[in-house]
Amino acid sequence: MSFRIGSGIDFHQMVEGRDLWIGGILIPHTKGALGHSDADVLLHAICDALLGALSLGDIGVHFPNNDERYRDIDSKILLKHCMKLIQERGYKVVNIDSTLTLQEPKIKPFVPQMQETIAGICEVLIEDVSVKATTTEHMGFVGREEGLVAYATVLLQKI
Amino acid sequence: MSFRIGSGIDFHQMVEGRDLWIGGILIPHTKGALGHSDADVLLHAICDALLGALSLGDIGVHFPNNDERYRDIDSKILLKHCMKLIQERGYKVVNIDSTLTLQEPKIKPFVPQMQETIAGICEVLIEDVSVKATTTEHMGFVGREEGLVAYATVLLQKI
Amino acid sequence: MSFRIGSGIDFHQMVEGRDLWIGGILIPHTKGALGHSDADVLLHAICDALLGALSLGDIGVHFPNNDERYRDIDSKILLKHCMKLIQERGYKVVNIDSTLTLQEPKIKPFVPQMQETIAGICEVLIEDVSVKATTTEHMGFVGREEGLVAYATVLLQKI
Repeated sequence: MSFRIGSGIDFHQMVEGRDLWIGGILIPHTKGALGHSDADVLLHAICDALLGALSLGDIGVHFPNNDERYRDIDSKILLKHCMKLIQERGYKVVNIDSTLTLQEPKIKPFVPQMQETIAGICEVLIEDVSVKATTTEHMGFVGREEGLVAYATVLLQKI
Repeated sequence: MSFRIGSGIDFHQMVEGRDLWIGGILIPHTKGALGHSDADVLLHAICDALLGALSLGDIGVHFPNNDERYRDIDSKILLKHCMKLIQERGYKVVNIDSTLTLQEPKIKPFVPQMQETIAGICEVLIEDVSVKATTTEHMGFVGREEGLVAYATVLLQKI
Repeated sequence: MSFRIGSGIDFHQMVEGRDLWIGGILIPHTKGALGHSDADVLLHAICDALLGALSLGDIGVHFPNNDERYRDIDSKILLKHCMKLIQERGYKVVNIDSTLTLQEPKIKPFVPQMQETIAGICEVLIEDVSVKATTTEHMGFVGREEGLVAYATVLLQKI
């Protein structure tokens, strides 16, 4: 049996006047995430973990943030593309674990929808996708609500 | 053979007048970690990695920080509970790797005790638990000794 | 089959008057990384991930930063030593994934050389070594170009 691990990290500023997309879900909040695409920090971290596991470059290589094709793009499309690359190489996802660090808002009520969305795209069961969240206890740029960070790890298996 | 990976991150402020529990060990220091429980940043990160590997929610879901039952609780009890959940689902721990980022104090002398404590609870050999530490080279809130952060990754195997 | 996972994180300040070694490659830039060795943040994170996977202590234990033998040392020598420890215990690297967080410079043009260098030392194929990079969107000490951080995860297999 052949396994591979991957890990990804993504950062976005939080600003007024933008939507807050996390894990493919629109979260009601006074601030949103700034970025060239829809700035979905969690989906970006998962994309990077998938790409990293097979050494396919990073999200910036595949979807440059100065490419007009990706302006305000739904990151679910980016995740779908990363999955396609994984599958073309004969791999499937075993499980995904992830952690969001953000001070506000509480994302717990939205976690089941995020899991369902990600599991659908990654062709795994809902219980194969974990989304955890923590504050940084008011420390740093996350604690000051200036930004949010997502960390993802994935285990892939050769089919 | 069936494997799963999990990863966890935890943050606590460091303040005067609190104990500094790390990896189940009381570390002599002028500051301690602030939190609702004993604020053991390393055990919390490991709990989250275990929970995340099987998509069981996060430590905030299982042990809410507004629940009086968990006030000042020994985090070894929380880790034991997470292990029970893992075992009920038919999994065992293969290995745990972790990194503490803190500027002060040096925790190296206490690492063997931490490994022994964690290995005992997680029912693995001492050499299956790794505790590493690094400063942040005086950068950020960790570098200013305002807080500490722990990162943990785990590999689980279906029994 | 027996697998182990490891993860490492490393931090260095960026200052004028130092070279910027990343992934074993000298990167042209106005600032370099401050440290006792050549301060190669990526190789250090990979060293720590390798050591952590087999619970062999951390890079600070193996190569103390007050030991004159390691002053300005090429971190490729440190990585080689870590690989030797892994191999002596009967393990090989399956794959390495890593992420650099730095605001400047763009390291993309140097990634293939980094992969080749790391793969050579770790005795894997180039496609078994992933080097990804992201800015922190101008946030924190990385965003202010005061420092850089590397994260690495490794999967090892018993031979």
